[in-house]
Amino acid sequence: MTQRHETDKPSGGAEPALVALDWGTTSFRAFLLDAKGGVLDRRDEPMGILKVPGGDFDAVFTAVTERWYAAHGALPALASGMIGSRQGWVEAPYCPCPAGAEDLGRRLAPVRTQAGHSLRIVPGVSRDSPGEAPDVMRGEETQIAGAVAAGQRDGLFVMPGTHSKWVEVRDGRIQWFATFMTGEVFAVLCQHSILGRLMADEDAGGGRGAGEGRGGTQEDAFARGLAAAGGPLLHALFSARTLGLFERLPPEGLRSYLSGMLIGAEILQARETLARRGTEARRVTIVGGAALAARYADALAHAGIEAATAPETVTTDGLLLIARAAGLIGR
Amino acid sequence: MTQRHETDKPSGGAEPALVALDWGTTSFRAFLLDAKGGVLDRRDEPMGILKVPGGDFDAVFTAVTERWYAAHGALPALASGMIGSRQGWVEAPYCPCPAGAEDLGRRLAPVRTQAGHSLRIVPGVSRDSPGEAPDVMRGEETQIAGAVAAGQRDGLFVMPGTHSKWVEVRDGRIQWFATFMTGEVFAVLCQHSILGRLMADEDAGGGRGAGEGRGGTQEDAFARGLAAAGGPLLHALFSARTLGLFERLPPEGLRSYLSGMLIGAEILQARETLARRGTEARRVTIVGGAALAARYADALAHAGIEAATAPETVTTDGLLLIARAAGLIGR
Repeated sequence: MTQRHETDKPSGGAEPALVALDWGTTSFRAFLLDAKGGVLDRRDEPMGILKVPGGDFDAVFTAVTERWYAAHGALPALASGMIGSRQGWVEAPYCPCPAGAEDLGRRLAPVRTQAGHSLRIVPGVSRDSPGEAPDVMRGEETQIAGAVAAGQRDGLFVMPGTHSKWVEVRDGRIQWFATFMTGEVFAVLCQHSILGRLMADEDAGGGRGAGEGRGGTQEDAFARGLAAAGGPLLHALFSARTLGLFERLPPEGLRSYLSGMLIGAEILQARETLARRGTEARRVTIVGGAALAARYADALAHAGIEAATAPETVTTDGLLLIARAAGLIGR
Repeated sequence: MTQRHETDKPSGGAEPALVALDWGTTSFRAFLLDAKGGVLDRRDEPMGILKVPGGDFDAVFTAVTERWYAAHGALPALASGMIGSRQGWVEAPYCPCPAGAEDLGRRLAPVRTQAGHSLRIVPGVSRDSPGEAPDVMRGEETQIAGAVAAGQRDGLFVMPGTHSKWVEVRDGRIQWFATFMTGEVFAVLCQHSILGRLMADEDAGGGRGAGEGRGGTQEDAFARGLAAAGGPLLHALFSARTLGLFERLPPEGLRSYLSGMLIGAEILQARETLARRGTEARRVTIVGGAALAARYADALAHAGIEAATAPETVTTDGLLLIARAAGLIGR
């Protein structure tokens, strides 16, 4: 029954120790982990919390995990992501910064499933600094815990996505973070603004996010977008139209150009924000999928920031670390 | 048959001199003007160029103007706006900066209507500075000509809207300008991003643009948005969600908060852009509708910039000035 991805940690045939769920807005991944984080089995379902019919999360949980319980009996289960939001199964109230695995482990929200299993949900993290608007994350705190588990107890992280997070970690705990709406701004401008009108599909491979598509034209256009990122943003955005209108960028480069501009702007703005709190962004660890991580690595290099990439197992590693901190599995 | 708006210049019963058309993407306004710009008659139609069935601009023109020609015989006709774009009736190629009424008047694009009337279309204006992306306007050049006709031959103008323009005028000619996508970014974020989810209608009066809605809650929220405008924009945007989530702004204030943040950011970015070209933005004339102009006046004051407002007759005044420069009517 072993179903694994090549990026999953292999199990070596050990005993199952945790049912680990990464349950977000649009996707759902369930893992059967051994005590070292090795993946014994895995299920990926298009069952993000907004896609679960009637909000019947129990039914989805049972359908995916029942054979694991049938084969192995009682197992602790831990979930992270939007499943703990107000729109999820139960709300797991935000844990304030600073927050590490121990803090999160003390604030798990319990659920008893109809089949009688015990599931716990990791809280999100909030930052509420005086004189600033509050900020929140949900799901990323678990990935950070995983990066800490992999040995990085201090440093800066960037977590690219719809709502990119920049996270400062000190002694294994999230000390500070800020959200940048880069991915969502990119998506709504491509899909709903005049900027999308001149854009051609960059490849025939279907849907892509802010960082995908890597042909030569796209790489050049992305680099030009990075170069334009330092300008006044509300004005610079319009160049994604005029460069097309004046045929100085081909239609199949406009999307990458806009992506480069927005990712570049995020990096400059994040660096400036960090500098205002006395933190110099010299080295950043990227937490994210390979395609987007590659674009961010290019963009960070362009800004003179050294980049490393976190292991792709941070989510399962984080769930394991938090489960251990909470005493759900042995230390 | 006199149909006029209260903001139109009264005609004093003089002879008609020009059929003047303001023909944009979403709206169409036709004026019968006397030689001083007084409005003898006027028609407003929901016939922006994207709404004309089958692109039959001739039919719309004829339906609106035929009674004027029937009553008064031959009349010169001049149109400005997106009617001169590639998607319009005929393309009127961009006139490069610097551009004043004389420059525009030399580059009118002629159209002979099926009824045998002669119509001319004002070109847009382009700016193509070395080392920068090009920029374009279409329609605003005519309003600037109108402001010049009203006596302001030098200075800075801001023209709020979907694509706001900042324009530097020297000796009656557009010397430089830049587009800011403020209005469109506001609209797509409200309608298509997560920021719209917590927003309540700010009043029951129906659709509003980036600068409308003026209750006490809205004014306060707008001011808070202005105060947040100096921050890193891609991050600051997210506060339009978290301030709602943490109930620090009421749902009916979130739209004004976002509006204030974006208008404030536009002003700061425009001032910085102008400063880089050696122009200090101390005083700016606002060209636009009353509601949006009031918001921009507040935002300019917040930034320490003195604001004046151009007459609401700038479009007809500009068409008249350009028609005169082109010799279509006597000087």
